[in-house]
Amino acid sequence: MNGSLGAAELLPDVHPAWLPPTAFRALGARRVRVVGDGPIADTVRAEALAATTAHGGALVTEDPELDLVLTGPDDDPEAFAITRDAAGTTTVTASGPGLLYGFHHLVRAGESAFQETGEHHPAYPVRMLDHWDNVDVHPVMGQVERGYSGGSLLYADGAVRPDLTRVAAYARLLGSIGVNRVALNNVNVHRTEARLLTDLLPEVVRLAEVFRPHGIRAHLSVTFASPILLGGLTTADPLDPEVRSWWARTTAAVYAAIPDFGGYVVKADSEGQPGPFSYGRDHADGANALAEALEPFGGTVFWRAFVYDHHQDWRDRTTDRARAAHDHFTPLDGEFADNVVLQVKNGPIDFQPREPVSPVIAAMPTTRLAVEFQVTQEYTGQQRHVCYLGPQWSEVLRFPFGDREVHTLAAGVTAVSNVGDDPFWTGHPLAQANLYAFGRLAWDPTADPDELLREWIALTFPDPAAHAPLHELMSGSWRAYEDYTAPLGVGFMVRPGDHYGPDVDGYEYTRWGTYHFADRDGVGVDRTRATGTGFTGQYPQPWREVYEDPGTCPDELLLFFHHVPYGHVLHSGKTVVQHVYDTHFAGVEAVERMVTTWESLRGKVSDDVHERVTERLVEQLRCAVEWRDQVNTYFLRKSGVPDAHGRTIH
Amino acid sequence: MNGSLGAAELLPDVHPAWLPPTAFRALGARRVRVVGDGPIADTVRAEALAATTAHGGALVTEDPELDLVLTGPDDDPEAFAITRDAAGTTTVTASGPGLLYGFHHLVRAGESAFQETGEHHPAYPVRMLDHWDNVDVHPVMGQVERGYSGGSLLYADGAVRPDLTRVAAYARLLGSIGVNRVALNNVNVHRTEARLLTDLLPEVVRLAEVFRPHGIRAHLSVTFASPILLGGLTTADPLDPEVRSWWARTTAAVYAAIPDFGGYVVKADSEGQPGPFSYGRDHADGANALAEALEPFGGTVFWRAFVYDHHQDWRDRTTDRARAAHDHFTPLDGEFADNVVLQVKNGPIDFQPREPVSPVIAAMPTTRLAVEFQVTQEYTGQQRHVCYLGPQWSEVLRFPFGDREVHTLAAGVTAVSNVGDDPFWTGHPLAQANLYAFGRLAWDPTADPDELLREWIALTFPDPAAHAPLHELMSGSWRAYEDYTAPLGVGFMVRPGDHYGPDVDGYEYTRWGTYHFADRDGVGVDRTRATGTGFTGQYPQPWREVYEDPGTCPDELLLFFHHVPYGHVLHSGKTVVQHVYDTHFAGVEAVERMVTTWESLRGKVSDDVHERVTERLVEQLRCAVEWRDQVNTYFLRKSGVPDAHGRTIH
Repeated sequence: MNGSLGAAELLPDVHPAWLPPTAFRALGARRVRVVGDGPIADTVRAEALAATTAHGGALVTEDPELDLVLTGPDDDPEAFAITRDAAGTTTVTASGPGLLYGFHHLVRAGESAFQETGEHHPAYPVRMLDHWDNVDVHPVMGQVERGYSGGSLLYADGAVRPDLTRVAAYARLLGSIGVNRVALNNVNVHRTEARLLTDLLPEVVRLAEVFRPHGIRAHLSVTFASPILLGGLTTADPLDPEVRSWWARTTAAVYAAIPDFGGYVVKADSEGQPGPFSYGRDHADGANALAEALEPFGGTVFWRAFVYDHHQDWRDRTTDRARAAHDHFTPLDGEFADNVVLQVKNGPIDFQPREPVSPVIAAMPTTRLAVEFQVTQEYTGQQRHVCYLGPQWSEVLRFPFGDREVHTLAAGVTAVSNVGDDPFWTGHPLAQANLYAFGRLAWDPTADPDELLREWIALTFPDPAAHAPLHELMSGSWRAYEDYTAPLGVGFMVRPGDHYGPDVDGYEYTRWGTYHFADRDGVGVDRTRATGTGFTGQYPQPWREVYEDPGTCPDELLLFFHHVPYGHVLHSGKTVVQHVYDTHFAGVEAVERMVTTWESLRGKVSDDVHERVTERLVEQLRCAVEWRDQVNTYFLRKSGVPDAHGRTIH
Repeated sequence: MNGSLGAAELLPDVHPAWLPPTAFRALGARRVRVVGDGPIADTVRAEALAATTAHGGALVTEDPELDLVLTGPDDDPEAFAITRDAAGTTTVTASGPGLLYGFHHLVRAGESAFQETGEHHPAYPVRMLDHWDNVDVHPVMGQVERGYSGGSLLYADGAVRPDLTRVAAYARLLGSIGVNRVALNNVNVHRTEARLLTDLLPEVVRLAEVFRPHGIRAHLSVTFASPILLGGLTTADPLDPEVRSWWARTTAAVYAAIPDFGGYVVKADSEGQPGPFSYGRDHADGANALAEALEPFGGTVFWRAFVYDHHQDWRDRTTDRARAAHDHFTPLDGEFADNVVLQVKNGPIDFQPREPVSPVIAAMPTTRLAVEFQVTQEYTGQQRHVCYLGPQWSEVLRFPFGDREVHTLAAGVTAVSNVGDDPFWTGHPLAQANLYAFGRLAWDPTADPDELLREWIALTFPDPAAHAPLHELMSGSWRAYEDYTAPLGVGFMVRPGDHYGPDVDGYEYTRWGTYHFADRDGVGVDRTRATGTGFTGQYPQPWREVYEDPGTCPDELLLFFHHVPYGHVLHSGKTVVQHVYDTHFAGVEAVERMVTTWESLRGKVSDDVHERVTERLVEQLRCAVEWRDQVNTYFLRKSGVPDAHGRTIH
């Protein structure tokens, strides 16, 4: 089975996530036949065998009394169709990974799966997770950059792990929700990691073999300087023939070893990473050089649009980091090769709890774009806080640019994984829901994130008595997090470096371009065309007007787009400063309710999960109180305006 | 010569500091006889031989035509007397280290030494430098905690350096200015460093042998938990007989190996270090247990009074870190054994550019106290900034408590060294002046620091054309640093963790007890008895009244003691906020003048020194501008008061 994990082989001391044995009850009680050959069919067959063995059904061949047939072929290898004959036999028709997706669709639907019919296919061909894992432990960033779930699943002791059993279990989880691509290493490519492309390639082969049976293609993050660093050339100029030849040879060698290799992820000319600017070339030149090497093999370049001046001067009010991606990339629309995907962060800054949707997404109609989310909770509580992000991603994907929602403008979605070698996979057990929701929204961006949450809860927690309280605890958790952190879309206010916990002025006088400009009279960033940085002008109608005017700008983004007096009255009817106080008190109260709700779940969820989440909630409450008090005190000291309700502000 | 360095053996690639060959010209031209035996006399003889060889004199014995005799004995081994007979022969009478001190007195005085007569003795028996060097490289603090001069002189690769030649050269420099004690390891004692007391003792013996010929006794920083960590006991309770017995045995073993061992330095119950509080004992119990072990051998316990709650809540305005040392220690006056020295930082907080003198110094008349300074520039520019601290230390030592200046209340002075394996010893070549001034003030606390600066300049820089410009550059550098950093004694406003560069709110919402409480109306810490923390009440008259009243409180300490409106008028006639603006512009202008002055010194100082200082001045100017702009912008944003002179505030 090429390293795939038989479904029944639960790993000791590792949480089963959303695939506990109970999740297979309805399917496992049936008589099931799996038709087909190859690694995917083998995976489905192994899953079906384990499920039926556990729940009283049977895996059969040639038997006329069937409940379920999984068979091929279908035109789209990722699609599947469900039909039912007069005898009541359900048939899933698919080929390739579609067979696996159909199988897990039935698992999720449970008994009702055996009533329904219909066709299913993913919205995108690109449903990708990026691992910011380092092979070597980085002196500052550790094994996993922005990782909050222990060490890397993939690497330990400076090499790919000898035992990939857990990687296989992870691939199984991803395959079950339709993720079809993974990037295996950090986009900040350090020296050892660069060599995955060449002399460490045999290790990548081992990883690719573990992901393949789950319909997942492996990708590598590469450094643009590879021709110099690895090839011994004197330049990495993308227009240099020797450089192109080096990429062609190197890429051919990769495909000789991994025929279904997915392609490269590149962070170029960004935060110190090398790129085409060094050679007077633009990003299309850079991306296309790599694309040319990948094209013969069907590979893709994922080129990150995260380019900005990270040595900005806080005294300079004309430079606006929010503008950077649009300024850099939209002039290149139409210049990128067909097998380049431009990877655009969901917002113009950096994965904040609240940002407007990136205007780049609407501005490059002839470029393939992927929207990039961050499942790992860098700015959203670092898996110490409950923060279910499905609603955030759904808002982005359904954001209307004219008559087209964002998901219709994109060729796919990518995200930074939140998984590590933690026994609960994600540090905080409830953060598994984010991984789950990401995969499910990548499949169907119009899905209701609240329904996805219910789905995840029902699969993961066998006791139905836990379901409603858990849903109540989690469904508003993103809003609660937003409430007790930086107000009204202004962002940051986090501790520099580790990005955890409050530091209102922490980034205010730095080079990073993330400011709030609070003074004794008001707060916020003027990004209007009239008096500010002009960022609003990067939006099409109606947003360029909606955001330009504080009277029409949505409250939750007001301080992202405008510098307003503390007494400015929001659509909610509150002043800005009173809104700050109210939301910060409310955010902490929401966490206090989470604590109470979770306490009521003792005995309804497993003890190890209960203990871990309890411990994290203690920290979340402590941290939320710290956010509340620091932000409220900061604005009371600056504004001098007392709380209308006389609550304690220190 | 027990590892001592012959004076003529200049180390290649190492700067000679204040003992270049030229410094010995006057003495070296004479006919000199050195009478006596032992390591100190040997050191003096070697110095005299090198000097006379270089400058045309001679080292002689039994010769009647003498210019200079250095001979013993004298009652006080650290004193010396200069006499002159009718034939014009100068005699220095001394025994022990006094002989060395007398020799270097003559070197410093040059030709005029051969005119003068008189008796000299040090003000204190304790003239000590503490090394915050780690044996192992600490993951955060590095090899030398708060060290800005490269690696440790003492340790490399996890052990005492095999070659101690540079340590010998360092010991020579210290001996030449009268330093007589060194602590060899960081007061934060980690696992490996703890073992210097026991199984690594042979390494300490090697170091002690190198310091001994220069009149310097070795000390170790020890962890209070040593009986547990090293002795395998279950307790470190200072009243436990087994614990006392362990300290007695261990200490006896140390003295068997190092008969002139100086004693122990202990940071207990402070910033996470273990201490007597764990056992319900007080600091006198703790110190006396170690003192008992050292007493038979003439050893001393240096017990740091740096004890405060470093998990303070910024919301709690009643706890005042400034009060802590007095609160903890003064009730114990009279309880400490005779061979305990309580080591009290010069100010109540932590080595800020400006603090009031610690009231503990006046409050423990029956306890031996040492005033602790910080030669390493943790908060004063980290040896990237020129900041000559002699005037600061002099102000402290001459501060009048009633009719007694501080230096008459103390049994000695200690300081944290600023030396590392840097070729200029101190990173910034001009920071050598701080090491020099410390030693000279420890000998004579009434010395004029400006004269000491001239003395250091004249010794160090052979070209007289350099002297006046250098003095001009350095003499006001402490004031310049104070001007462009935190205003009016309020302190901190530095970047958390590394303590370099500005971050006005960096410590404002932390657990460290270092706040400024700036709001839209005013700034400063109310430490009055009337309305604040009551810290002013720890001072005797007149200071308890002087500091209590903003009308009498010195301007430079106003915000240390009072929270005042921005419009409060200082004795200078300026408002607080205008003072902030003016001093910050003035501070940067002072650095600009330093740059110009230094440029004029090209060719008048050696090229390597010129290059290094030039490079540091570039950084100092950049950093001073950053301080100016961040502090000014911060207070403009908070106060809304424009600069009276219309200068640019961002």
